[in-house]
Amino acid sequence: MKRTNFDEMKCSIARTLNLVGEWWTPLILRDLFFGVCRFELLLQHLGISRNILTDRLQTLVENEIVERRLYQANPERYEYVLTERGRDLFPIVAAVMAWGDKWLNEEGVPTELIHQECGKVAKPVVVCRRCDKEITLSNVRARRGPGGSVEEWEAIKHAAKAAAQK
Amino acid sequence: MKRTNFDEMKCSIARTLNLVGEWWTPLILRDLFFGVCRFELLLQHLGISRNILTDRLQTLVENEIVERRLYQANPERYEYVLTERGRDLFPIVAAVMAWGDKWLNEEGVPTELIHQECGKVAKPVVVCRRCDKEITLSNVRARRGPGGSVEEWEAIKHAAKAAAQK
Repeated sequence: MKRTNFDEMKCSIARTLNLVGEWWTPLILRDLFFGVCRFELLLQHLGISRNILTDRLQTLVENEIVERRLYQANPERYEYVLTERGRDLFPIVAAVMAWGDKWLNEEGVPTELIHQECGKVAKPVVVCRRCDKEITLSNVRARRGPGGSVEEWEAIKHAAKAAAQK
Repeated sequence: MKRTNFDEMKCSIARTLNLVGEWWTPLILRDLFFGVCRFELLLQHLGISRNILTDRLQTLVENEIVERRLYQANPERYEYVLTERGRDLFPIVAAVMAWGDKWLNEEGVPTELIHQECGKVAKPVVVCRRCDKEITLSNVRARRGPGGSVEEWEAIKHAAKAAAQK
């Protein structure tokens, strides 16, 4: 099954998913955040197939989310170290975790993040850095940015307008 | 290709991905956030296959992310309306977009979100609601929560420890 490539879309969501949106990849990142950074340990901990893990790590390396480093020469063994770009995905994963904790959790949260800034269990929330207020679907309005395609914007506005008609 | 089900894992990231982590689903949500909520319009706008769109929407309906509503009786036509749970995914998608804008954008951002709270282009960032400080990989420490599995925690701590050894 060849998946559609989202890379061509003029959309930062699609482009990001093209790098880290494949099945298993966010869980690989989770393990890397936890410090599980060696191939064999990831393989064992995730219960993933060798082929899939190889493929996903290769995509992450190609896109500079992680760096592959030799940590043992004989036999050759590699570890995968998050780059700044990769570490910058952590807050998103924390927000995903918070959503799951809120909506899918019936028996207490599986994991707590202790926030060193306040010393308490972190409560991740997405705010706007300019005004510190939360960002929600109802308090934002999208518009085309400087790099947006006029055609793509016309298409989505047209579709949204058609959907709003009775 | 049967994908592994993440539902059994005691992990809010895995459980959330099980609902919304399939290829295409975040882009379907993006279109729903934009107001493109009818099957035929999603089909056309996304350039997705009918089978995949049907499958993804069904998963979203089953998991109460969207509700399916009849908007035309003859012929029968349905629209897909985000639930509160579904709308609550928007901030995460905004954070994903911000990451893409920051790291993958070479020709200006494709889309801007105008934040009604401050009237400016929103700058999505993940903070802790308790202390309003940012959440980053380096300022949190994970621990087992009340619903976490002792076995799974031992396994990941063991793997992280093994990876740290030279």
